[in-house]
Order: sequence, then structure tokens, then C-alpha cells
Amino acid sequence: MRSIDLNSDLGESFGVYTIGTDRRLMRYITSASVACGWHAGDPVVMRETVAAAKACGIGIGAHPGYQDLMGFGRREMKLTPVEVYSYVLYQLGALYAFLQAADVHLQHLKPHGALYNQACKDEQLAGAICRAVKDFDRDIIILAPYASAFRGAAEALDLPFAAEFFADRAYQPDGSLVPRVEAGAVIRDPALACKRVLQMAQEGTVECMDGTILSMRCASICVHGDNETALETVRLIRSTLEQNGISLRPIKELL
Amino acid sequence: MRSIDLNSDLGESFGVYTIGTDRRLMRYITSASVACGWHAGDPVVMRETVAAAKACGIGIGAHPGYQDLMGFGRREMKLTPVEVYSYVLYQLGALYAFLQAADVHLQHLKPHGALYNQACKDEQLAGAICRAVKDFDRDIIILAPYASAFRGAAEALDLPFAAEFFADRAYQPDGSLVPRVEAGAVIRDPALACKRVLQMAQEGTVECMDGTILSMRCASICVHGDNETALETVRLIRSTLEQNGISLRPIKELL
Amino acid sequence: MRSIDLNSDLGESFGVYTIGTDRRLMRYITSASVACGWHAGDPVVMRETVAAAKACGIGIGAHPGYQDLMGFGRREMKLTPVEVYSYVLYQLGALYAFLQAADVHLQHLKPHGALYNQACKDEQLAGAICRAVKDFDRDIIILAPYASAFRGAAEALDLPFAAEFFADRAYQPDGSLVPRVEAGAVIRDPALACKRVLQMAQEGTVECMDGTILSMRCASICVHGDNETALETVRLIRSTLEQNGISLRPIKELL
Amino acid sequence: MRSIDLNSDLGESFGVYTIGTDRRLMRYITSASVACGWHAGDPVVMRETVAAAKACGIGIGAHPGYQDLMGFGRREMKLTPVEVYSYVLYQLGALYAFLQAADVHLQHLKPHGALYNQACKDEQLAGAICRAVKDFDRDIIILAPYASAFRGAAEALDLPFAAEFFADRAYQPDGSLVPRVEAGAVIRDPALACKRVLQMAQEGTVECMDGTILSMRCASICVHGDNETALETVRLIRSTLEQNGISLRPIKELL
Repeated sequence: MRSIDLNSDLGESFGVYTIGTDRRLMRYITSASVACGWHAGDPVVMRETVAAAKACGIGIGAHPGYQDLMGFGRREMKLTPVEVYSYVLYQLGALYAFLQAADVHLQHLKPHGALYNQACKDEQLAGAICRAVKDFDRDIIILAPYASAFRGAAEALDLPFAAEFFADRAYQPDGSLVPRVEAGAVIRDPALACKRVLQMAQEGTVECMDGTILSMRCASICVHGDNETALETVRLIRSTLEQNGISLRPIKELL
Repeated sequence: MRSIDLNSDLGESFGVYTIGTDRRLMRYITSASVACGWHAGDPVVMRETVAAAKACGIGIGAHPGYQDLMGFGRREMKLTPVEVYSYVLYQLGALYAFLQAADVHLQHLKPHGALYNQACKDEQLAGAICRAVKDFDRDIIILAPYASAFRGAAEALDLPFAAEFFADRAYQPDGSLVPRVEAGAVIRDPALACKRVLQMAQEGTVECMDGTILSMRCASICVHGDNETALETVRLIRSTLEQNGISLRPIKELL
Repeated sequence: MRSIDLNSDLGESFGVYTIGTDRRLMRYITSASVACGWHAGDPVVMRETVAAAKACGIGIGAHPGYQDLMGFGRREMKLTPVEVYSYVLYQLGALYAFLQAADVHLQHLKPHGALYNQACKDEQLAGAICRAVKDFDRDIIILAPYASAFRGAAEALDLPFAAEFFADRAYQPDGSLVPRVEAGAVIRDPALACKRVLQMAQEGTVECMDGTILSMRCASICVHGDNETALETVRLIRSTLEQNGISLRPIKELL
Repeated sequence: MRSIDLNSDLGESFGVYTIGTDRRLMRYITSASVACGWHAGDPVVMRETVAAAKACGIGIGAHPGYQDLMGFGRREMKLTPVEVYSYVLYQLGALYAFLQAADVHLQHLKPHGALYNQACKDEQLAGAICRAVKDFDRDIIILAPYASAFRGAAEALDLPFAAEFFADRAYQPDGSLVPRVEAGAVIRDPALACKRVLQMAQEGTVECMDGTILSMRCASICVHGDNETALETVRLIRSTLEQNGISLRPIKELL
């Protein structure tokens, strides 16, 4: 692998409430998934986030979630595919408007939190999300785990798909993430996160929590912005990859 | 005048709550302003409204409002121009997504309720709204009263502008509407509303509540969907205009 | 059984959106569960509903739900017991304020929609709800199905409990309701609903959809206000019960 | 003056969003106005804030605001007195529930942000707020500026009233605050704020921005929790007052 993308979720502040270290993260990442005002973010934040990401030359994507600001979109909801389709399309268009006003392309879509996790395992939800993307613009890249229902749904609709590798999360042998509630699920040591990223990028493998070696080839690396070591991790990953001859570029330049 | 547009506000249902008689009104009007999920409407309603309006060949516009579902966007709020710009752009994009998915053009934008009324008198607000439209798509028509800050704001930005005449509302000599709280402000008699429309269309005048005759030339006639006689009024206006040789066509075909 | 309670869910209008036929239902029912502004209702509606119910001498209860107005609180959410406890306590207090201002007692609490259905089967949720009630006022009656986790939770906390019988819903042999999506789940024929109520009141049994005869003794009968035949059903149940010597009285007079 | 109250607004975090330094401020203040979930706060935050304030022996009050989380309740809205009455009663009851569950008394009510500012100048709004308090519990103290419509409204309803002095805000000769947008409106120097508090407490005066000396006798001192020097200011005020023989006690012990 010669090039890889480094993505993070941004624009999750709301009104007077500030969260994350967006402006500093933007100096190291190559793609940003921007909250669309449902689980986080508001129109003023979206406008400012798009402007800042554009200035940094970062690929920008939509990061739709459940309408659950109180739970930050992390609580499961049981919705119908028609509801999910409509909610994703709504948020996609809302973010698109800010990109259009800033004369920037919409690069990708990556759902947030419980919507992401539920759709990873549910073909109907993944299908509804991909259908909304397809109906809006068939060039938008679906960014999701390799081992998930998203890949099949994107392929079925002939949508571009990019797999993402979680630098700061432990994996299970089936390719899914160890749930956040379990010990060891979140990797807070930047050096360890970086070592795993390099192994994935160079050897195409990841070591699961139980020692299993899993094949894993992803075009993008995700670092969660709300991890307190996010900035350090992102910086270390970037410099390590570059030292190993792997350049960092937005997803759309890699597919 | 050979042709005129007949517009109404639609898609104002929300979740299990139904309002208006959208499907029946659609058989008579030529343009619809569709709520965007802030003061009314939700993504599922937006999708259904766009599909139904498309099937009727109606010109579709965005109808953004304040984020005040409890007050139906009819209560004044004091926002900054940057907030108004961002909120309008957000809602514009959200509705656009459903039009894009349905392969339909976005014809116009008409703000709702208190946002509409406040901006009519406030150049900064009208300017912020028009700037959001311009930054998104310079072909979108601003639909607003002739005697309002919208006209100047649209002209300054070289945006297409269409004036609308309220069939069911009384006017003041300065061209503004008699406030809803005053007696006689709302015209519920379909025959009277129709007579006023014909006078405006044929003679370019309207008789104010105090008897003043005002010059008034509008490309579009608005009938409020939540007026209980809306359906009858719309039907009567349509047939009367056609009997008088005035055809009904969407705004975009008139400018 | 000499006396029984007849309850309905009221106060589910919101802003300009009207739902149900509250004022007419109030002439026949003896207890009302009033929405608390999360899944439905708003403070102005709550105030008016409490005033009207007081005027009719109806027992008033809180009807808390999920914060999901768009889904009317009918969509499952996965919340922690601490969240459910806090959300129920919040809504309970909010409704209490209107009762206190009107100098009326808070008679009971009955959760709404998905919160009700999930808690019926989940001891932790039922326990969190009952704990919120207990911490607020240990005299408030829990109104819920007999065959549900609510009964055990209320007993464990020594809270008064009243079982309710659904006049307009079909039962399964385990005492749970046939899900709304299944054919025959909702009984729309007032005469049939009434016949079932009489059998429950006189014989203490209900016939399930598969023919099983189930023992069923409930202090309260529930008729859903959003069933289009609600008014007719309620009227028929009331007159039939009275003709059979069974008087209708609020739950608190029955325990 | 032998004793005085020191109040701050707390519990303004929401979901994953944290704001303020509540736990540290609580060690120095004697009264807390707790957000009620409309402009800020959520039920889980309310529960935790009440528990922490109780542990510190602080007098607890309700801090209701507009339903405008995106604007933190700081944006003016034009509501009817009936709406304001109902919204305040709702929030008052919601907070009361958490106090009741914690077996703590509700000491006072102080509106937030734009609701506070608008009602200071509007007798109808101040009257609606005081009426809601009176209808709920006639022992709740109204905490507001001396020179405001609240004083007259409270007196007219025979409600206890306590005036508050803003340690960190400049005054105008009519006793109102210099608007936040003007230079010098917010006092960020803890020593200066403290000097002004001492002068008010000992001499019953305040020096306005234009040099006017105004008579000012307040039972409570307010320090805004979102001022970045809040903690230092509160600490300094407390120690200075105590060194000058003025003890700090909750409002209810002072009236």
C-alpha cells in the first residue's frame, strides 16, 4: 500500500457546547465525517467546520445519525427502512448545502453511532442508507467496516465503497469491534494504535484480542475525535506512515 | 396578464400529526412551498409530499422556518443574520435532497411564518436568506410580497424574484398585510377572495381595508392551506381565472 | 365486580396539531393518562387537559414516554435504567405541576408506547419506572397489564398497582397483546369490544385469538383514544356495564 | 448587612456536552439555580446536580428558560403570557420532582437568559412567571434584579422576593445591566468584582459605568458560572465577605 486515508468525526459541537479538538485534528487527517445536526452539530457549526476542512484540503463526508442529541446518537432505536432512508437523505442534503455554498465536493458518507453499528449487522438498514446515497449522488463513497452489511449493500447498488480500520479499537475474530463496554475495547496508547495501523497498512493484517490474526485491508484509518489521546495518536500515525513511505491522501484519490 | 401561478404551503404534517388537505389542494395549485422539518414537516412527510407534487406537475419550493415546532414557526425570534443564513441553507439542502432523489428541480424558496414576516421588514434578515439561496443555486426564485425587503435583497444579489398576492388576507395601504389578530384580516369567503384575485390579475390593483386602491402586480397568488375554506377558494380561483382567459402555470414558466 | 375504572390516553395534541377527541371521551371515562410533553403533548395542552379532566371529575395520571415526538414514542429505544428513571421522574414532576396548580391529586402513572411495551417485558425498566414513582410519591398507582414486569416491580416497592384490560386489543395465551402489525390485533367493532369487557368484568376471563380462555381480573379498562371508533366504544362499554349493575369509578376509589 | 447569599447557575451540561465547573463552584456558593432541560440541562444532569448541591447544603432553585437549546435560551422569543406561564410551570414541576426524590426543599425560582431579560422589562411576562410560581407553591422565592418588573409582580401576588446583585456585570443608572455586547459590560477581574460586592454589602451602593452612584441593597450576589474567572471570583468574594464579618447563607435563611 502506497497511500492511505486518515479519517475522523468532526463538527460535533452544538450551540454553546464545544466538543473535540477539530481545528488541531484537521492538520493531520485527510478526511472528515461532519455531523449533520441530528445527533450532534448545528447549522452554524456545520458551516464553520466545512470552511475549516476546506481550508485544510480535507475530503469531506456526511455523518448522519439518529435524532437523539441527548444520547449523542449512541442509543439504539428501532426504525423502519423508510424512516432510515428519509432521515439519511435529509441529513445528506443538509450537509451538501454547506459544501455547495463553499464550492466543495461531497466525498463520502459514514453513519454515526448506533445507526452505524445497527446497520453494520442489518442488511435492510444498510440497504436503506446506501439507497439514500445512491438516489442523491452515485459518486459518494460509503465509508464503513469491511466486515459489515454496508459492503454488500454498496456493491448491490454499484456505489463506491471504502473500508475503514479503527486504530483505537480492538477487533473480534469475525472482523467486528469489541464492544465499548468490555475491557480493552478502546486503545488509548498512541504507540500501540500506531503499531496496529502500520501492520494493517504493510501486512494487511490485524491481531484480534484473542490472538487471532485477521486479514484486513482498508483504504482508510479512523481515529475517534473524542478519545482523549486522539490528537497524539493521529500525529504519530501520520509521521510513522510517512516515514515508512506511505503517503496520506483523501479517500477519493485512492479508489 | 395571460398566466399566473397559484401557490400554497404544503407538507406541514409531522409524525402521527396530520394537518392540511395537501393531496386535494395539489389538484388545483401550480406551486407548492414544502416545509423542511423545522417549524413543521419531517423527512418522511417531505419525501411523500415531493412525490405527490411531482405526480401533479407542480413547481416545488423550500419553505424554511424557525426551529419552533411547538409554535409552528409563528413566534418571533431574534436571531443573527449568520444564524438565519445557516438555518435557511440547512433546510434548503434538506429539501433539495428529496427533490434530487425524485429527479425534480427546486423552483423557489419562500420562508415561513415569523421568519417570513420579520424578514419582510428587516433588510439584514432578507439579505441573509437571499444570500443562502444565492450561495446554493442562483436560479432559485425568491417568492415574497412585492412591498417587502425581499425584493431589494433579491435584486441586489441578482436572484430571480416573484411577488405573491394573498387571496385570503386584507392589505394595508403600505402594501403590508393586516395582522392576523385584527378583525377582517383573514378573508374566509371564497367568492370575495376570488373577486380580489381577479381584480389584481386584470387591473393590477387591490382594495385595502380602509378603501385605498393600491397598485399590485403579482406573478403568484397564495392561498393558505390551513384556512378551512382553502380548498373551495383554490377551486373557485382556478375556474374563475380560466374562464377569464388567464391560465395557471408554475412560477418558473412565468419569469 | 361491582365497580370498574374506564381509562384512556389524553392530551396528545401538540402545538397547532390536534389529535384525538379528548373533550368528548371525557364524558364517559373515569381516568385519563395525560401525555407529558415528550412523545406528545405540550405545556399549554397539559394545562387545558388537566382543567377539562378536573371539570369532569376524572382521575388523572401521568403518561410519560420516550423523547421521540416524530415517532409518537412508539419506536423502541435502548436506554439505561438510570436514564429511564430520570426521564420518568422529569415528566412525572412536569405533569404534577399542572395538577398542583389546579389543586388536583395525581392518581396514577402509566407509561406510553414503546416505553410501556419494553418495560412490560423488562424487569430493570419496570423497576426503574416504579422507583421513580416511589421516590416521588408512594401513593401513585401503577397502571399496567396484569401479566407484565410492572406488577412484580410495584409489589417489590410496595406501590399500589392496578391491572388494565384492553377493550380494543386481542390477547395471546401468555396474557400479552397480539402485536399491532398482526391481523386482528386491533378490535374496531365496538360491540365486540364491549362483549369482551363484560365477560372480563363478570366472569374474569378473556378469550385469546387462538381460542384459549384466560383468567383476567382487571380494575381498569383501557380504550385507545386514537382508535377511530373510540368514542362509540367507550359510550357502549359505559352503558352496558351500568345496565349490568357495574358502576364506573376512578381507580383510586377501587383499590 | 450580616449575612448574604451567593448564587450561581448550575446544571447546564447536556448529554455528552459538559459546561461549567459545577462541582467546584458548589464549595463556595450558597444557592444554585438549576437548569430544567429546556435551554440547557437534561434529566440525568438534573438528578446529579440536585444530589451534589444537596450534599453541599446549598439552597436549590429552578432556572427555567426558553425551549432553545441551540441558542442556550439567550435569544429573544415573542410568547404569550399563557405560554410563558405554562412553560415555567412545566419546568418548575420537572425540577421539583428531583428535589422531592432527594427530599430537598425548592428554595427559589430564577428565569434564565432571554426569558429573564425580557420579563425584567415586561410586566405581563413577569406576572405570568410569578403566577406560575404562586400556583405551584407560594413559599418559593423569586430571585431577580431589584429594578425589574419581577419585584412588582411578586409583591402583587404576595410572593417572597429576593434581589440579586451581579458581581460580574456593569450597571446603568436606571439599575439595569449594561448589555453584554457593550465594552466593559462583563467584569472579568475577580478583585474588581469583589470590591463592588463589598461596597454593595457594606454601603448599599454600586458605581455605574458612567460614575453614577446607585443605591443597591440585595440579599443575593450572582456570579455567572460560564465566566472563565467564575471560580476565582466566587472564592475571593466568599473569603473577603467572611473577613469583613459577613457570613454566607442560602437566601431562605435571610428573608
